Amino acid sequence: MDLSVDGGRLRADLEANAAFGRIAYDDPEKRGRTNRTGTEANGAARDRLIECFEDAGMDVAVDAVGNLVGTWLPDSVDSDAAPVASGSHLDSVPEGGIFDGPLGVYAALEAVRAMQDVGIEPERPISVVSFTEEEGATFGNGLLGSSVATGVTDLDESLALENDSGETLGDALDRIGYRGSDEIDPAGWEAFYELHVEQDTVLEDASADAGVVTTITGITHCEATIEGEANHAGATAMGDRTDALAAASEFVLDVEAAANDIVDRESASAVGTVGSLAVSPNATNVVPGRVEAGVDVRDVEAESMEALVATARESLSRLERERGVETGFERPFDVDPTPMSDQLRDAAHAAAETAGRTAIDLHSGAAHDAMRVARVTDASLLFAPSRDGISHSPREWTDWADCAAATAVLAGALARVATGK
Amino acid sequence: MDLSVDGGRLRADLEANAAFGRIAYDDPEKRGRTNRTGTEANGAARDRLIECFEDAGMDVAVDAVGNLVGTWLPDSVDSDAAPVASGSHLDSVPEGGIFDGPLGVYAALEAVRAMQDVGIEPERPISVVSFTEEEGATFGNGLLGSSVATGVTDLDESLALENDSGETLGDALDRIGYRGSDEIDPAGWEAFYELHVEQDTVLEDASADAGVVTTITGITHCEATIEGEANHAGATAMGDRTDALAAASEFVLDVEAAANDIVDRESASAVGTVGSLAVSPNATNVVPGRVEAGVDVRDVEAESMEALVATARESLSRLERERGVETGFERPFDVDPTPMSDQLRDAAHAAAETAGRTAIDLHSGAAHDAMRVARVTDASLLFAPSRDGISHSPREWTDWADCAAATAVLAGALARVATGK
Repeated sequence: MDLSVDGGRLRADLEANAAFGRIAYDDPEKRGRTNRTGTEANGAARDRLIECFEDAGMDVAVDAVGNLVGTWLPDSVDSDAAPVASGSHLDSVPEGGIFDGPLGVYAALEAVRAMQDVGIEPERPISVVSFTEEEGATFGNGLLGSSVATGVTDLDESLALENDSGETLGDALDRIGYRGSDEIDPAGWEAFYELHVEQDTVLEDASADAGVVTTITGITHCEATIEGEANHAGATAMGDRTDALAAASEFVLDVEAAANDIVDRESASAVGTVGSLAVSPNATNVVPGRVEAGVDVRDVEAESMEALVATARESLSRLERERGVETGFERPFDVDPTPMSDQLRDAAHAAAETAGRTAIDLHSGAAHDAMRVARVTDASLLFAPSRDGISHSPREWTDWADCAAATAVLAGALARVATGK
Repeated sequence: MDLSVDGGRLRADLEANAAFGRIAYDDPEKRGRTNRTGTEANGAARDRLIECFEDAGMDVAVDAVGNLVGTWLPDSVDSDAAPVASGSHLDSVPEGGIFDGPLGVYAALEAVRAMQDVGIEPERPISVVSFTEEEGATFGNGLLGSSVATGVTDLDESLALENDSGETLGDALDRIGYRGSDEIDPAGWEAFYELHVEQDTVLEDASADAGVVTTITGITHCEATIEGEANHAGATAMGDRTDALAAASEFVLDVEAAANDIVDRESASAVGTVGSLAVSPNATNVVPGRVEAGVDVRDVEAESMEALVATARESLSRLERERGVETGFERPFDVDPTPMSDQLRDAAHAAAETAGRTAIDLHSGAAHDAMRVARVTDASLLFAPSRDGISHSPREWTDWADCAAATAVLAGALARVATGK
């Protein structure tokens, strides 16, 4: 298969999409957008994608949670054949970048057009997908569209989620005209590829064109509470204190040390982060009485995640004994590591070789829609390089040539799976 | 001098004062009030105090920042004699207790009445003082009235301070009728006694009736900033992080260890507290990029305070070297330790002995108006016991008998100084 991805066409798509919710900066290094689910900008981005689907002769479907699919059904296709799908999302975090999400959507579209350009006749339909509210920045739940489509999350509960203005997702989708009635069921897909920016520097450091994800790490979020005794910082002698922040500081360092230890001895991909700390009463002249800490634990191995969580709990027990604090520990969010399809990874590597592009295996520490789709069908996650690993920022950047190179790998892989070759 | 303090009269005053801004609780152990400077409740508390001054035949003065003084000028007094003053404050923190402040004001009034009851003829006028906005809870600056009266703080700047509603102190005092035109100058006082609740457990533990403060500790507030690099908690390997919160956690523990070390080796009264921590972006799934820490350092010895501050700065330098963070350190608030007058302390101890009360020496880790007055004249701070050391809380409590006992010591001390005996 000799596929020629048109980098200029892809760039034009991404720049056109970047206009929806564009943020202007004086600094030419900053190219930001705020494209929150259900806003006018979000509706406009969707409108344009559908125009592109129609321009490419694709059938359009919109489901009840606003997921969009454009499907290319050439005459060569057996109408019963399960489609090969690919895509990502169009929504962004506030003041996010222009590649995170849209690259995967428009790269999939470009792959279809590249196949059309050279007259490839796939045996399977090819669907380009845009999932709703991947970021969770507006209605609170990340991976929302893919979670609903794969049955992880209830539709009605999702439609009842509210944004900061108190508007429900259902009403917001109605307002922008994207509460659809079509069914989009990833379980019926033969395979799913998602191309995304890496958001880290592994590809950049290796000067690789594309990354082929082996496993999306599992994610556990824990909430630790540490109760001491709030007291006057002047009138309370050092020996009379039960300082919740001093105890919490030991906890933060214990979590960090435990993660470093697991990296050294068991699993280099393990990470443990105390990302948030709420101190109460949080006044300079009051000994802290209570701290709530938010902990994020991830790895490709469930065992090392459990080991890290166990060490965090042991730290709290030790602090109860040694510092007299009371502690609590909850684990409100827990997703197992998700291995990607070996067969689809092989196809991606083969496609890279054919296209003369370098592709390397790596894991993903970030969650993506492919994680949800992998529950119901074969899924693969590909990465394009991110300059300095920056994302969720107007400084997020992937060179246009890098976008095209990674898209060539995606297109080749999709063509292989869709043609059965 | 045989002075008989009337505990019932004092209690009636304190309970009447507690009604202004009273908070009702189901729990009989909780007796709270919110009496913020410039509120209707604050105006009512002032009105009642002035009625009491007038009932006791005292002259009333109100200065431009709303400080109140009632002066007893019996015929025995040389009109040129400098008055002996005593008092505290009527304002409270939100949901504060009923003794913190009012005890010192009404105990001073009760001392005057007790002297009147037995016909003592002082050589000096006796002034009862209520300073404005001691807590700083409403207009942001603690010890405000005493700071203005003693020239530490500018009057016009103080009157321009705004509360949460954007109203200036000047306007608020106008509204409640307490922007006065009299001059109140503590530099012209012969001596000043303040009786206050201890807010700690030294007296309770020693079963003492009163505390005689040797020194009010110095106070330094420092603001440390630690800049790391905010990053995706999943996509950023442990080795690639510059985690501002992990660094800040070491800082918190360094400050605690330095304070404990100084307590063990140099000065048992030293305290060092990281009371506040602001983490940014403070999301569970983001490696923290910036932390601001508020540090409170106090001691009766300036040397040990400096040693503690120096160790805190060394900690930040070490973190720059070892963790690659950038740090900043400011010291926006700095007050030297304030020794109380030895002569007034001696008078208080003598008064306690005469009254058959036990009084012990101790230091104050909390700042009080007496700290400001000590800049311009002889000052003394006396403490009454605080149950469990609790203050700034509806659970603040001092038994009525303890209020009367400490007031007896105050009255005796005032009578000694005012009569020159």
